[in-house]
Amino acid sequence: MARALSHINGNPLLQVPCRPNPMPYKPMMVTMSCNQSYWASINADIEAHLKQAIPVREPLSVSQPMHHLTFACPKNTAPALCVAACELVGGHRDQALPAASALHLMYAASFTHEQLPLTQSSRPRSTIQHAYGPNIELLIGDAMIPSGLELLARSDDPAHTDSERVLRVMVEITRATGSQGMIHGQYYEVERCQSGNKEASYMVEIERISEKYEGALHACAAACGAIVGGGSEEEIEKMRRYGLYIGKIQGMLNRIRSHDQELNKLVEELRNLASRELQGFYEAKIAAISSCFESNFMYA
Amino acid sequence: MARALSHINGNPLLQVPCRPNPMPYKPMMVTMSCNQSYWASINADIEAHLKQAIPVREPLSVSQPMHHLTFACPKNTAPALCVAACELVGGHRDQALPAASALHLMYAASFTHEQLPLTQSSRPRSTIQHAYGPNIELLIGDAMIPSGLELLARSDDPAHTDSERVLRVMVEITRATGSQGMIHGQYYEVERCQSGNKEASYMVEIERISEKYEGALHACAAACGAIVGGGSEEEIEKMRRYGLYIGKIQGMLNRIRSHDQELNKLVEELRNLASRELQGFYEAKIAAISSCFESNFMYA
Repeated sequence: MARALSHINGNPLLQVPCRPNPMPYKPMMVTMSCNQSYWASINADIEAHLKQAIPVREPLSVSQPMHHLTFACPKNTAPALCVAACELVGGHRDQALPAASALHLMYAASFTHEQLPLTQSSRPRSTIQHAYGPNIELLIGDAMIPSGLELLARSDDPAHTDSERVLRVMVEITRATGSQGMIHGQYYEVERCQSGNKEASYMVEIERISEKYEGALHACAAACGAIVGGGSEEEIEKMRRYGLYIGKIQGMLNRIRSHDQELNKLVEELRNLASRELQGFYEAKIAAISSCFESNFMYA
Repeated sequence: MARALSHINGNPLLQVPCRPNPMPYKPMMVTMSCNQSYWASINADIEAHLKQAIPVREPLSVSQPMHHLTFACPKNTAPALCVAACELVGGHRDQALPAASALHLMYAASFTHEQLPLTQSSRPRSTIQHAYGPNIELLIGDAMIPSGLELLARSDDPAHTDSERVLRVMVEITRATGSQGMIHGQYYEVERCQSGNKEASYMVEIERISEKYEGALHACAAACGAIVGGGSEEEIEKMRRYGLYIGKIQGMLNRIRSHDQELNKLVEELRNLASRELQGFYEAKIAAISSCFESNFMYA
């Protein structure tokens, strides 16, 4: 069934943008054929894990907005890809849930802050309904980032046999969301809005932004899944590249509104590159992951 | 020599507020006698570690603002306390520098975001000179949090003998800055500004805010120092309480402007409680740490 890439859990008929974006590029619907039960079950497990980890408890003044903003944010596909990558390399789903939940919280913080009504800002005002004042949404977004990483740090087993692996995932996620990756994509996007840069090719710019934002996030997610699932170094790197291609496709389709020939060609190339990275894995699992991420990208 | 508690490195005659605070409580100068060479050397080492960790490199559009905002932020005493606590329990300074640097970056992110010009905000507009636009300062603040934790996660030794300890410090810092601690103090402060709450006692409110913000940050810093320095569980808890008392004193003196009798009594009690936690440690080291944090709190 065709459904929104960014909202694979919940009502399959409800199509929401992959990344509601306050920048001028209005997001479009990217829908896809999907092995629905597989993805729905992954997302249900991530949500259950997050509900347990981010409970509403005293003091309510802090936990309620954090809980609300964690689940009000539209779903991103990176956490589910983390779990799928873990299972693809032979790991158990439970091993990937802390990393997937951390990735969701990092994305939710970024989404929450993108909606803030800043003064002196060149970007268009957000049109979403704010449940809390901007001071609170700023603070809670700041707290979501360490909270996500706390979840991950706590996932080490009592005997500490997983400490090394947890720390490796921590470096992956903090790099992708901190000094490298996502921040560059967001920066380019802000710069592009501010300067209205006409020099660089539109397609090149969109490709650069998508590679750095959605590409970096999905590359990190897939690599983390392979790490916690016990994949070999080769498998981890295959998953990293797979996530990069898939994230790039997603970012570009969400930003470019026309059925551009250049875009179609680029998406096709990226899809082929992604498919190639899955070769050698267990076939039934390839079918599950690729049915969601590679086949039938369609405009709604 | 009397010098600013929050600016113990740099020009000793330059007194800056401990936590320049955009809330209505104008910060006051808290000065102290200080074993200057000890604290100056700690801060120089933290700064050198940060300069290496947050270099200015390509792409400059991201690394330059991150570098600038990391060092433009006024110094906070928590990172130095982390290093001092490590040395107090017999650890080597190098062991504490990644955690101290991470603490500085968490504080710098919080400071950067406090200065953002939000619309619909009840708090007074910041009067500081902004080097970058609000979009960039928001993004860079978001990136500083994972960057600080990346620094820490990478500090594990190649043989991974420290993984367990690094993860424990990670949980401490993410808890203090995420789901618990600092965020509550900031939330109370925002709430207090918004509601102009006259019901609760002024002193009780300031105590609560100071305990949750400066108290939580310093308790975490001192406990982390003791953990990485190889302290016993008892020593770690002693350092945690020491940091809590010291942070509370600092927060209260910065927020309350008058020589209030009730305040003086409370500070005296907290100082005595703090001193008690140092009993049993090596005397020369007690003298160094307490000369800065317990003696001679004075109003400038």
